Amino acid sequence: MPQPTASDPALATSPVSAATINLLRTAGTATICSQLAKRGLHRTFLFGPRPLRPGERMVGVAFTLRYVPFREDIDPGLAYDNEQSLQRLAIERIGPGEVLVIDARGDISAGTLGNILAARVRARGGAGIVTDGAFRDAAQVAAEPFPTFCQAANARLSSSVHHPVEMQTVIGCGGVMVVPGDLVVGDDDGVVVIPRSIAAEIAEAAAAQEGLEDFLLTQIRAGAPLLGTYPPNAAMVASYERRTRDGDKIA
Amino acid sequence: MPQPTASDPALATSPVSAATINLLRTAGTATICSQLAKRGLHRTFLFGPRPLRPGERMVGVAFTLRYVPFREDIDPGLAYDNEQSLQRLAIERIGPGEVLVIDARGDISAGTLGNILAARVRARGGAGIVTDGAFRDAAQVAAEPFPTFCQAANARLSSSVHHPVEMQTVIGCGGVMVVPGDLVVGDDDGVVVIPRSIAAEIAEAAAAQEGLEDFLLTQIRAGAPLLGTYPPNAAMVASYERRTRDGDKIA
Amino acid sequence: MPQPTASDPALATSPVSAATINLLRTAGTATICSQLAKRGLHRTFLFGPRPLRPGERMVGVAFTLRYVPFREDIDPGLAYDNEQSLQRLAIERIGPGEVLVIDARGDISAGTLGNILAARVRARGGAGIVTDGAFRDAAQVAAEPFPTFCQAANARLSSSVHHPVEMQTVIGCGGVMVVPGDLVVGDDDGVVVIPRSIAAEIAEAAAAQEGLEDFLLTQIRAGAPLLGTYPPNAAMVASYERRTRDGDKIA
Amino acid sequence: MPQPTASDPALATSPVSAATINLLRTAGTATICSQLAKRGLHRTFLFGPRPLRPGERMVGVAFTLRYVPFREDIDPGLAYDNEQSLQRLAIERIGPGEVLVIDARGDISAGTLGNILAARVRARGGAGIVTDGAFRDAAQVAAEPFPTFCQAANARLSSSVHHPVEMQTVIGCGGVMVVPGDLVVGDDDGVVVIPRSIAAEIAEAAAAQEGLEDFLLTQIRAGAPLLGTYPPNAAMVASYERRTRDGDKIA
Amino acid sequence: MPQPTASDPALATSPVSAATINLLRTAGTATICSQLAKRGLHRTFLFGPRPLRPGERMVGVAFTLRYVPFREDIDPGLAYDNEQSLQRLAIERIGPGEVLVIDARGDISAGTLGNILAARVRARGGAGIVTDGAFRDAAQVAAEPFPTFCQAANARLSSSVHHPVEMQTVIGCGGVMVVPGDLVVGDDDGVVVIPRSIAAEIAEAAAAQEGLEDFLLTQIRAGAPLLGTYPPNAAMVASYERRTRDGDKIA
Amino acid sequence: MPQPTASDPALATSPVSAATINLLRTAGTATICSQLAKRGLHRTFLFGPRPLRPGERMVGVAFTLRYVPFREDIDPGLAYDNEQSLQRLAIERIGPGEVLVIDARGDISAGTLGNILAARVRARGGAGIVTDGAFRDAAQVAAEPFPTFCQAANARLSSSVHHPVEMQTVIGCGGVMVVPGDLVVGDDDGVVVIPRSIAAEIAEAAAAQEGLEDFLLTQIRAGAPLLGTYPPNAAMVASYERRTRDGDKIA
Repeated sequence: MPQPTASDPALATSPVSAATINLLRTAGTATICSQLAKRGLHRTFLFGPRPLRPGERMVGVAFTLRYVPFREDIDPGLAYDNEQSLQRLAIERIGPGEVLVIDARGDISAGTLGNILAARVRARGGAGIVTDGAFRDAAQVAAEPFPTFCQAANARLSSSVHHPVEMQTVIGCGGVMVVPGDLVVGDDDGVVVIPRSIAAEIAEAAAAQEGLEDFLLTQIRAGAPLLGTYPPNAAMVASYERRTRDGDKIA
Repeated sequence: MPQPTASDPALATSPVSAATINLLRTAGTATICSQLAKRGLHRTFLFGPRPLRPGERMVGVAFTLRYVPFREDIDPGLAYDNEQSLQRLAIERIGPGEVLVIDARGDISAGTLGNILAARVRARGGAGIVTDGAFRDAAQVAAEPFPTFCQAANARLSSSVHHPVEMQTVIGCGGVMVVPGDLVVGDDDGVVVIPRSIAAEIAEAAAAQEGLEDFLLTQIRAGAPLLGTYPPNAAMVASYERRTRDGDKIA
Repeated sequence: MPQPTASDPALATSPVSAATINLLRTAGTATICSQLAKRGLHRTFLFGPRPLRPGERMVGVAFTLRYVPFREDIDPGLAYDNEQSLQRLAIERIGPGEVLVIDARGDISAGTLGNILAARVRARGGAGIVTDGAFRDAAQVAAEPFPTFCQAANARLSSSVHHPVEMQTVIGCGGVMVVPGDLVVGDDDGVVVIPRSIAAEIAEAAAAQEGLEDFLLTQIRAGAPLLGTYPPNAAMVASYERRTRDGDKIA
Repeated sequence: MPQPTASDPALATSPVSAATINLLRTAGTATICSQLAKRGLHRTFLFGPRPLRPGERMVGVAFTLRYVPFREDIDPGLAYDNEQSLQRLAIERIGPGEVLVIDARGDISAGTLGNILAARVRARGGAGIVTDGAFRDAAQVAAEPFPTFCQAANARLSSSVHHPVEMQTVIGCGGVMVVPGDLVVGDDDGVVVIPRSIAAEIAEAAAAQEGLEDFLLTQIRAGAPLLGTYPPNAAMVASYERRTRDGDKIA
Repeated sequence: MPQPTASDPALATSPVSAATINLLRTAGTATICSQLAKRGLHRTFLFGPRPLRPGERMVGVAFTLRYVPFREDIDPGLAYDNEQSLQRLAIERIGPGEVLVIDARGDISAGTLGNILAARVRARGGAGIVTDGAFRDAAQVAAEPFPTFCQAANARLSSSVHHPVEMQTVIGCGGVMVVPGDLVVGDDDGVVVIPRSIAAEIAEAAAAQEGLEDFLLTQIRAGAPLLGTYPPNAAMVASYERRTRDGDKIA
Repeated sequence: MPQPTASDPALATSPVSAATINLLRTAGTATICSQLAKRGLHRTFLFGPRPLRPGERMVGVAFTLRYVPFREDIDPGLAYDNEQSLQRLAIERIGPGEVLVIDARGDISAGTLGNILAARVRARGGAGIVTDGAFRDAAQVAAEPFPTFCQAANARLSSSVHHPVEMQTVIGCGGVMVVPGDLVVGDDDGVVVIPRSIAAEIAEAAAAQEGLEDFLLTQIRAGAPLLGTYPPNAAMVASYERRTRDGDKIA
């Protein structure tokens, strides 16, 4: 497999189908992690980011932004300049269905952005925002009907701690490599990254697993023992497939 | 006092009365900690576990399960085998009124279990689940009307980090020794462990303290100063006892 | 500027106007941090304390209390003595509009106080409680309609970990110097401290910024780009001022 | 591969040859980690333990001891009883060539043992001591010509924090599963665990790699580029083998 | 026992005899911790501070200094003013045999002082310096034949992070209450605090324990089992006493 | 001041004089931090990296390398490929006087490189290596007469945790922005970064400060009080200048 370089323009070019996006909307991050793990991918779940809006799912394509620590000679003022700041430039390039993923080095001693910038990401059609840093105005950010994930709230200005230095390069976020164009899915457990090249395959497998597990959960709630049910033996799988087929007929 | 060994079968045998369980349902963990501290027990409150369902109380008897880090030569596959995995075997032995307490070494880099296993614990009559690790499917686990306490949500598979190695031995969880058969009580503050040998005594003292403190809180809200009220002087205690007695008469 | 000494009685004497307090009620901590940063103050936002009651704002004057680790020769018993304990004496001196700020060294291995003491602070007219430690009875504390901020819940007795040693001296809390008499403001992002000498100026500037930013947010939600809007150019500011003026006429 | 249970007596029975031990004495932990990683074992290096005696190597067979947090009802006194304490009993069972590996849950708030017990392990022929906790009397422990690895020094009594609960069961130490009978190797980088079943194979491969790398280091120091040298191409390997063969003839 | 207030002038007045100081020079911190624990004092060993000069012992009387986080309005410049800075004033008050103990809140993001100030403490006859923060110029500080204990080295200016606010009040340092006038002892394990009121008693008991343990270590090294030796039975103690008496005669 | 972009080729082009390098060799990092702080630069000292070779100074020009977390689909094998791996390519581009600075996100769960690669950096004339991650073969790395700074030793393969993704872009290391071409200075306190544009000015000021402080230290050791000496008053400065001038004459 080719290794990504930090600014490989080809990375994000293969299209992601609406079907893949829709399937991923039905799959939890735990199920996606299971499917990734079956294929040998164990470092895809971000450590740290939590949903500001529990119960809201996020599915989108990664648009990356990298912060480094600010330094007084480079950042003499406090306000980011809209015409030069990579934070602002990045936000004005985000397209529909994209998730802004900010590498803040896990530093939560200031926000990475606040509610006005979050609103702009949403207005541009963005699918969400993820950072291993913090948000300012966390209550206002959370008030938008828009999925956002961060590690903390912190009212301090982004520019007092962070300096945005690159967009659309390979970053680390929450201990996970994020390549621009990867699929990013979030729910109440947190955020998982799916390599774009296997996104369709993972989406299908995860959606199928969700269907089966909903059925198994019903069995367990009705008193079935784990043995034979979870994981299901052949009879249980057959029972599920019969139910699904009949359900399809009826519905 | 006899020292526990890791697998002493006698530890859990003395019965816990329904009266003790019911009294503990009325007592907060803060009050229980106070009563334990009065008897010289200061290391009984678990550091880390938080309720997935704020507002829901848990009272039960500890059923312990110990995890160690997984190792690739021991855990070649991803899925736990229902017939051999101690995780699955432990869950299938949990009895009514028992709380599954999982020693995950405070490692939250993967779940310790997810919603289907949690549902099975509940279906078997379990009284709750506690871990100093994480849960997967945290939203689904929280959706069950069943008290669960963990340190984090994490969608990664248990088997990618943890290996279950023992059940019903003495463990550490959240910095506290947990002996199989101990009483385990949880509320919004977190989880406290009560040695079984003093559970009845603690339950009675804690319930009594709760009654008195409800009365004192009423006084404080009405403007009483701390001096004389908290802790109460003799007059205040007499006033409480009078109120309680009269209340008994009226009710 | 004069340096504070730990017990300078002059620190808290200049009056804080009701107008300042009221303006601060309309300003978020993020906005206040921005105004403080413009004046060169970057270390004013407390790291750690979170609201027990999301959505509730706090504004008040700092009344400080310092804890050190308890030691068995100094703290032979468990219960604080109302006549000698500085915790109790401090609470009985809190006046209307004051916020109790407890330096617990960030140690969350026990509570700093519980619901009865919190109720007493409220009964005395206190404006809130802040600590970089924990609260006991967190659910009961949260049930009071009263803003409280802490880093964790912990059911263990304060006296098993903490010893109150001073009141109304300069403390550190959440990594920030707090001088008795400072203004203390809290919201969902957390807690910020405003030096008393610039409280009126900050309050005015922050309230004005909030008004402008509400307007800008409306523009952004309506599709305006960041360039020209955030930060606003002259035309945008003029538009806001016109709207505000007209709004004043209409209302 | 069979899964270990916590107290499987068969685990430690296959003999470890003196040849294996001697080869491991020539191999660094970095090289051993490389050989383990080639075979798919990535979680074998302990996170935390550092050598008290830099420059001294340790090779031995794991003898495990598990601590849990002490509790006042179980540990009423301070001194461990030689006839009942598992800490003392474990030390009196350690045999020649064994390394005492103590699971202290990474808790360094007290020692796990001090210089007299360390001296006893040495007197019994033990090959070293490893813990993810602390040692007391660290200077005295370090003064023995005996390899010891811990995460910190701490003068507090073991019994004020730890309760020894099991010996010779599967433990976690420094984030790694340790099975009784595993090989344990330590050097200045820290400590690595080698599953017993592949110890001979790893020992041979690691010793061979060390020989080759010594040769490659000489080339690098003499100015060779990485390309062709590290990793070596066929010509470089041939050159090494020629040198080794000739060296054998000469020596 | 009377509770200390933060600035009780009576605390440090009872004299400490030269005999006590000399006995403490012969006792390790582990032994002192054991003697303190026997008397119910478990929170006396500082968590964090390590010796800059391994192998060098420190014994002295605590002179306390408290730092809080700096704030730009209070600390507008970088350099501490010798005539007003409490850091400088404190150092100029330290007397012979006193140990400067600095409460830096465990914050190691800047030094607490550097080599010139350390040299001044030594020149005034100080017995050492302890902080749970960092030192600047750590190599130069370590070059003085003078015991110093800190948690880290950090080249940043003290005034960029810390503001000295009080001297000779009760502080917390490394998680331990330090009362001015307490005895402070340091060795390679770290630093322990002895309440002044029991310093003489602890010194005698610790010195006696050291003598016995040296004897027991000789027995253990010669092959004695733990049982009967550590802790010693009556015969072993009698043997030690005989040896000591004879040794006195011979020497 | 122009803001750096991540891959601005102009950054490293202004020459650094040998005089600047030589002056920096005489200045400690504490002194350099003081001079940077005087000019408003407070975030230049790396948090975490410690010298593997205490007592050895490092001065050089930053050559940056950025790691992100590895991911199994991108890094299917273990060994880095010399022809494609950015780790190897970077090392083969390092020139005389350059310091390799590796952004490892503070992750010490594996090495960033080992002794053979360190030897190659040295063979190419490199001036040192700095990382906020770990080194493998730490003892062998330390054996080279070559300054190296890291946060820990860890024997695990770099490729099991890290993926090298960029060289010579702006990075964060130890909480500090490092721009390619910055000056990097290390001593026993740790590592400081000096913006290239002010390197000559800082070098001169720091060397001058060192000379004065050596003189002041002599005064302090001889018993001078802080007042008038540190900071020095006019008479003390005059005395130093006289001494320096006379010393120049004599020597």
